[in-house]
Amino acid sequence: MLKNFKLTIEYDGTDYHGWQIQKNDRTIQQEIEIALFTMTGERITLVGSGRTDAGVHALGQVANFTSKTKLAPDNFQNGLNSLIPEDIIIRECCLVDKQFHARFSAKSKTYHYQILNRKTPSAVGRQYEWFISQKLDIEAMKAAACHISGTHDFKAFEGTGSPRSHTTRSVITADIERDNDRIAFRIKADGFLRYMVRNLTGTLVDVGLLKINPEDIKSILASKDRSLAGPTAPPHGLFLINVEY
Amino acid sequence: MLKNFKLTIEYDGTDYHGWQIQKNDRTIQQEIEIALFTMTGERITLVGSGRTDAGVHALGQVANFTSKTKLAPDNFQNGLNSLIPEDIIIRECCLVDKQFHARFSAKSKTYHYQILNRKTPSAVGRQYEWFISQKLDIEAMKAAACHISGTHDFKAFEGTGSPRSHTTRSVITADIERDNDRIAFRIKADGFLRYMVRNLTGTLVDVGLLKINPEDIKSILASKDRSLAGPTAPPHGLFLINVEY
Repeated sequence: MLKNFKLTIEYDGTDYHGWQIQKNDRTIQQEIEIALFTMTGERITLVGSGRTDAGVHALGQVANFTSKTKLAPDNFQNGLNSLIPEDIIIRECCLVDKQFHARFSAKSKTYHYQILNRKTPSAVGRQYEWFISQKLDIEAMKAAACHISGTHDFKAFEGTGSPRSHTTRSVITADIERDNDRIAFRIKADGFLRYMVRNLTGTLVDVGLLKINPEDIKSILASKDRSLAGPTAPPHGLFLINVEY
Repeated sequence: MLKNFKLTIEYDGTDYHGWQIQKNDRTIQQEIEIALFTMTGERITLVGSGRTDAGVHALGQVANFTSKTKLAPDNFQNGLNSLIPEDIIIRECCLVDKQFHARFSAKSKTYHYQILNRKTPSAVGRQYEWFISQKLDIEAMKAAACHISGTHDFKAFEGTGSPRSHTTRSVITADIERDNDRIAFRIKADGFLRYMVRNLTGTLVDVGLLKINPEDIKSILASKDRSLAGPTAPPHGLFLINVEY
């Protein structure tokens, strides 16, 4: 009988070309599928909740796979963790309903973007944050984040060259928090367009630099024009925190 | 006229063989001295507040050097940061008194040791914490840390093969804090013996594993016998946080 397994996965994306399998580049999906083949002898396709770009990290990516295996979830967790590189960790493995599909069953996802805002870069943890030396106006950024919440057409924040037919998404929460030199942007939505979090972050940083007014977020959204929004923030400050089902 | 410069340095020790210059290994001191030579043409010796072992990190290592240069502290900070690898950052550079000596003028130092205590290791930040999967009794560890504070002969916690004639040190604070899965041991003292923080951490972990009673710290100190203390914690969880002058 075919069993359906759900994996919760943490990874350091620094040395990977993102989640999804590619011909010539190292990816997270590939590393786990190779280990699944070693464990089961089956050519298993792992279904992720969605792609993460090259260099993006995850604390709670979710994926599922089906197998005829007699192995238990614990065997998979321990076995995979001993086979995959140390920059990928299976945090949880459990049996789920046949109907569970990591992508289609997802109700929402939460991302976190980390910025370091001080005069000098960091050495410790530099792989996990975007360094910005100019002073950022945190209150302006918070005001701008408020305009992101809600249901909007996010076409202006979609990566060019990757159009979707349907570009309306519902942002459940969008918050900016400052903790000393570190600024975190946390966003939860029912779905994300390609580069959406990084484009929103780049735009919020432009607000913090006083290049864009907080109120302008509304007109940028209305314009559906990518060229009016800010730059794409680099991938290494971005974390997929959680997928909600 | 000879000027005396003080540097405050952050580094990720992962790829280094510690602070101090060595013949065949890459060290922090060496990387900065090479950059100082490039900037000044002088063969400058950097005086650190003390060594850090291979793999140990620093947020606030301090060093000083003298030079006949006409360059200002800001020139050194910016110039060095553009010349040295990105896993070393000069956080501050300032002119100090001729008498200032990074090692001999230090009044105390603060170290921090980071432990991850949960069932599965981390992928993100794994370079910066010691993973322990067995449950640690945090209250026992806190009680044990209390016995470390004060002036004691720390011979039992000194690395073997590196004896000092004088092994009494005054520990100003020694605290254990838990924040979810992370446990931090923070210690400030007027000086440290080689491996002292890592040997204390390994012993506190043995207390947390209930292999040693909190009260036993007192008898281990009194014994001056290294074999009674716990193992040496790995270097990658250790951070030199600050040097106080």
